[in-house]
Amino acid sequence: MHFTSDNAVGAAPEILDAIVAANDGSLPSYGGDAETAAVEAEISRLFETECRVFLVSTGTAANALALASLCPPWGAVFCHRHAHIEVDECGAPEFYGGGLKLSLLDGPDAKIAPDALRAAISDTGAGGVHQVQPGALSLTNVTEAGALYRPDEVAALAAVAREAGCPVHLDGTRFANAVVASGASPADLSWRAGVDVLCLGATKNGALAAEAVIFFDPARQAERIAQFEFRRKRGGHLISKGRLLSAQMAAYLKDGLWLDLARHSNEMAARLAEGLRGAGIEVDGPVAANLIFAVLPRPVHDALHAAGARYYPEPPCQPEDADPVRVRLVTSFSTCPRSIDRFIEIVAKAGSLR
Amino acid sequence: MHFTSDNAVGAAPEILDAIVAANDGSLPSYGGDAETAAVEAEISRLFETECRVFLVSTGTAANALALASLCPPWGAVFCHRHAHIEVDECGAPEFYGGGLKLSLLDGPDAKIAPDALRAAISDTGAGGVHQVQPGALSLTNVTEAGALYRPDEVAALAAVAREAGCPVHLDGTRFANAVVASGASPADLSWRAGVDVLCLGATKNGALAAEAVIFFDPARQAERIAQFEFRRKRGGHLISKGRLLSAQMAAYLKDGLWLDLARHSNEMAARLAEGLRGAGIEVDGPVAANLIFAVLPRPVHDALHAAGARYYPEPPCQPEDADPVRVRLVTSFSTCPRSIDRFIEIVAKAGSLR
Amino acid sequence: MHFTSDNAVGAAPEILDAIVAANDGSLPSYGGDAETAAVEAEISRLFETECRVFLVSTGTAANALALASLCPPWGAVFCHRHAHIEVDECGAPEFYGGGLKLSLLDGPDAKIAPDALRAAISDTGAGGVHQVQPGALSLTNVTEAGALYRPDEVAALAAVAREAGCPVHLDGTRFANAVVASGASPADLSWRAGVDVLCLGATKNGALAAEAVIFFDPARQAERIAQFEFRRKRGGHLISKGRLLSAQMAAYLKDGLWLDLARHSNEMAARLAEGLRGAGIEVDGPVAANLIFAVLPRPVHDALHAAGARYYPEPPCQPEDADPVRVRLVTSFSTCPRSIDRFIEIVAKAGSLR
Amino acid sequence: MHFTSDNAVGAAPEILDAIVAANDGSLPSYGGDAETAAVEAEISRLFETECRVFLVSTGTAANALALASLCPPWGAVFCHRHAHIEVDECGAPEFYGGGLKLSLLDGPDAKIAPDALRAAISDTGAGGVHQVQPGALSLTNVTEAGALYRPDEVAALAAVAREAGCPVHLDGTRFANAVVASGASPADLSWRAGVDVLCLGATKNGALAAEAVIFFDPARQAERIAQFEFRRKRGGHLISKGRLLSAQMAAYLKDGLWLDLARHSNEMAARLAEGLRGAGIEVDGPVAANLIFAVLPRPVHDALHAAGARYYPEPPCQPEDADPVRVRLVTSFSTCPRSIDRFIEIVAKAGSLR
Repeated sequence: MHFTSDNAVGAAPEILDAIVAANDGSLPSYGGDAETAAVEAEISRLFETECRVFLVSTGTAANALALASLCPPWGAVFCHRHAHIEVDECGAPEFYGGGLKLSLLDGPDAKIAPDALRAAISDTGAGGVHQVQPGALSLTNVTEAGALYRPDEVAALAAVAREAGCPVHLDGTRFANAVVASGASPADLSWRAGVDVLCLGATKNGALAAEAVIFFDPARQAERIAQFEFRRKRGGHLISKGRLLSAQMAAYLKDGLWLDLARHSNEMAARLAEGLRGAGIEVDGPVAANLIFAVLPRPVHDALHAAGARYYPEPPCQPEDADPVRVRLVTSFSTCPRSIDRFIEIVAKAGSLR
Repeated sequence: MHFTSDNAVGAAPEILDAIVAANDGSLPSYGGDAETAAVEAEISRLFETECRVFLVSTGTAANALALASLCPPWGAVFCHRHAHIEVDECGAPEFYGGGLKLSLLDGPDAKIAPDALRAAISDTGAGGVHQVQPGALSLTNVTEAGALYRPDEVAALAAVAREAGCPVHLDGTRFANAVVASGASPADLSWRAGVDVLCLGATKNGALAAEAVIFFDPARQAERIAQFEFRRKRGGHLISKGRLLSAQMAAYLKDGLWLDLARHSNEMAARLAEGLRGAGIEVDGPVAANLIFAVLPRPVHDALHAAGARYYPEPPCQPEDADPVRVRLVTSFSTCPRSIDRFIEIVAKAGSLR
Repeated sequence: MHFTSDNAVGAAPEILDAIVAANDGSLPSYGGDAETAAVEAEISRLFETECRVFLVSTGTAANALALASLCPPWGAVFCHRHAHIEVDECGAPEFYGGGLKLSLLDGPDAKIAPDALRAAISDTGAGGVHQVQPGALSLTNVTEAGALYRPDEVAALAAVAREAGCPVHLDGTRFANAVVASGASPADLSWRAGVDVLCLGATKNGALAAEAVIFFDPARQAERIAQFEFRRKRGGHLISKGRLLSAQMAAYLKDGLWLDLARHSNEMAARLAEGLRGAGIEVDGPVAANLIFAVLPRPVHDALHAAGARYYPEPPCQPEDADPVRVRLVTSFSTCPRSIDRFIEIVAKAGSLR
Repeated sequence: MHFTSDNAVGAAPEILDAIVAANDGSLPSYGGDAETAAVEAEISRLFETECRVFLVSTGTAANALALASLCPPWGAVFCHRHAHIEVDECGAPEFYGGGLKLSLLDGPDAKIAPDALRAAISDTGAGGVHQVQPGALSLTNVTEAGALYRPDEVAALAAVAREAGCPVHLDGTRFANAVVASGASPADLSWRAGVDVLCLGATKNGALAAEAVIFFDPARQAERIAQFEFRRKRGGHLISKGRLLSAQMAAYLKDGLWLDLARHSNEMAARLAEGLRGAGIEVDGPVAANLIFAVLPRPVHDALHAAGARYYPEPPCQPEDADPVRVRLVTSFSTCPRSIDRFIEIVAKAGSLR
């Protein structure tokens, strides 16, 4: 009953097997192996357009390197106040971006609305050289609150950004979950909706450590791409035994594994939400993907903890004796239905005792 | 009738004379001249404590260098959303600070309230290494909205900051105006209230280009001070003919000139506010110092413009045909009472025609 | 017959097995797993002193993060002109170090002599604030030219550095090879000789991607260590599924595997060097570890290439038809004796035809 | 008898007068004044081509901002080992340039030879993404050793740089002295010889604090120019009362004052060198401009010091009792012939006593 995060488990077996399988023999270092090229080809196929792909080992590196490529040091990256790049990366975007600024927007479900974006952009940089300029838009899909942007929503935001000359970055740590939840194609949810660079996560959805930074329309973005290679190397993110990353990503994408894993994860969350609601527990939001925000009466929380269930309070700083306790529950590719049923059982029992 | 900014005029005659007087003879370069040492001594006397003083030529440099000394790259500087360091310095704090983050607080009159600061601090860095940490508090006095922090208000905020291990920076671009308006001593309005580093402006109050970065309690801040010298040099802000800066600052402080200039400036603002109100014009806020925010009916605005009056709309982005027009009026050490009377005359006349 | 680099092969079986074994179950993320703590304990045991250990996935990250912890932005890192940090990291030390400077020293076998270091230090920073200051000493052992520093040599250099207030960094990409070649203990070759931070490489000696940044005397280096954690996170080098790194490093160190692998690697190099010399080929230097620099007559080079042997010219920029061709040959933990014998056979045969 | 540096004196009277004259009245801030535009026009006239000009207050700022515009963070700036940007700016180029690298070349008289440049470039970046790339060439004219590059010499170096895609920066702290000494036109000594950005110094040649960063061929360099404005502001180098800088620069250039001042300075150096040689003192190099390097027997040095003469030893770190003492003597726009004659008199007298 581990629902702390989708990075608390190891790798999916297919991906682990691929690491083992890729281990033999001598291969060119630093991403010069054939598998790395094959990954780029496969991503281009899956996204129905030519892509330029760079593999790195963490989501923070992927996001920060991507943003540094899109936004000058004197630019503002527009993002939600709860975006991972603001809340959970310890200033990595500012570090890689040479001191750029994150401009924070509000909005329910950690989603940005086009009007809010338009207003923020028009407030930015009007004072000329005295102010940072509109730099880039950064979205997260699935959002940090577990909500979904549909293709038309991404497109509406990207259109506002584009008008102001801002390229669009998509933090796709849970992009697979978004594809499954929306039913949209990867292309519709990214470049066709106006995304320039997608950070496609694999780590939280079955890999050990592998993320792909995907540049769409590489001819138009040639300069950014050329710079990206140097940025990655200078950041210490060009792995010498590149096969480690390429093997994971190849296995992740092969035969739709990435979507199968995400589908399972989403289904487990739906099962958990349904069970909680059935037990009279309040669940916030639509539970679009694999994140659930629930309100647990104190005795329920205590019973769960006593039974070994693990999850985080959200927001993090609640009083120690809070009642009810607001919590975040994250399912993953490896969540077992039985552990959910057991969780619900405890909830129901503890709830009925009240 | 120039009320755009207090940096639209040249230097006060005493300061200009001092530049001329300091020109003769050979002197040690790079701040090694005797006048620079004398300025440090005089500031220590005026602030009733030992100070370590560095002169630079712009307020942006002063603020950004000071903040880089106080806050690590992975720290958050708490400041008001309308602070000059956020709005008007094009990311200089982030640049000098190695990618630090400004954490923006709201509050009327561009003032921060202790509770808002406490809440912001407790929201910052609780996630450990994943998040930037509480770094420093930055106040501006007089604030960007023309309001005043009294010594006890500064002290209350500094106490909250201190508790979280955050040193306190004071943007004192208009510190002289604050001293005059509050009637407090320079010491009471700075280090006695908990300020660690004061950026004492002279440029807007009579100098051509001179700002003093003042470190209080130099023994405690020895490491920051040692680093500051290198930061200043690396930033290109160590002027070779240091006499240019020291002469200005010495004259600025001599015989209370800095306070006389600020007093005049504040009085002119009071006269202007009184006149405007007398003419039925709405003036926002208390007009504590030399900044006035007024609401001009369109015909009044047009009449003023036709007569050659100059000032900025505030906020900057109002429709071209806005009615009324919200404006910012800034008086300075050189504002002539007659220009104010003429301004009021036009306002009154245009107002009565409506 | 792959002698391009020791990073052209995959992982040693023991290390691969450990990755697989560590995959099961839920574990705390971000290095909070028990294995990470165990690695720190084991390194402390092996080095006979308390250590603070951080794992990262590349040597460039390890070096650049370590140097940023030891040297201020206005400092000079003294290193050999051929050091990896100067030649092969695309400016990563300057990037992480906020614009620090590498000060390049000459010396045979990519080794620095104490007198050269003393001279460089005394030339640095005498001009005060106008110049960067002595910041840190960075050594590489085994050096980039395949030579060895013995403990007393490290100690002599560290003493010179220490006198100037410079901490000592050791790039230990091939530290295991140095331990084996020197017969010295890990402690004698590092902290007992004055090293403050050791970047202990595993990737080139049997891991897939794992390096340990080791701080000795953690009480004295507490401030650096505290900062290191933020630097690593901001650099995107805090891996969420930390088990990937800890499992590799634990297996690497277990039962002396790291030394066994290095011993094999060194022995293969000795065998290769001996064979080459027996075949009349000039081999530069002492062949202390697993790097060989040889001078191949053109026909020998052509015959080797035709037979599928792979290695790099050194220096890289030789004319396409150079005769002789100067080359670098690198053996590794997985080099097979038969491939060496076959290599020698071809050399001997092609040589005898001349 | 002050020969320490050309920045130990104040401003030329014409320039001081201009500062005073510009003081009256309200003017647009931040370089929006008409005088700033006039300076740009005048520089374009003097250099016989359209220029885009930015004024700053120090040479270090001018150089560092210019280099950051020309060279990416992963680039190498090729410069002489004795260049001011390497020796006297405390790493400002690395700071502004986001961690770029200075690649140091040797050569007599602090001059770079085309072959040395070609070799350095071909050694740089061949390893692809693992290495910093050729970024820019930086020359100083008059060099730090007091030597002169003639137009054809600049052109030969610029051609080598251009071939490698490197733009050319000229540190023109003493550019006026170089124009006078060479008899070449400003255009021939800069853009016609391939210079892209010239940092034209005024501070050492008669201003108090004023330097012009001149971009030639602004259409081609539009992107760099746009970025420069933000870099300058972020660096805190956009002075609010821009008239301070524009007045100095306008006066400096008016009616050939800049060349008159440099001519005087050069003539004083020639007079000093001739006198020294006449007194049997060894003078190094050609004494092309206003820098002299002489070898003083100890008694001569002592006699000069006793008489109040001031100058620096060069190199700085000579033993306290060195005999002879190697010294640098710098003349300036304000050097008085009588002080030279007096200096020679003392030298001759002390020399004859030996």
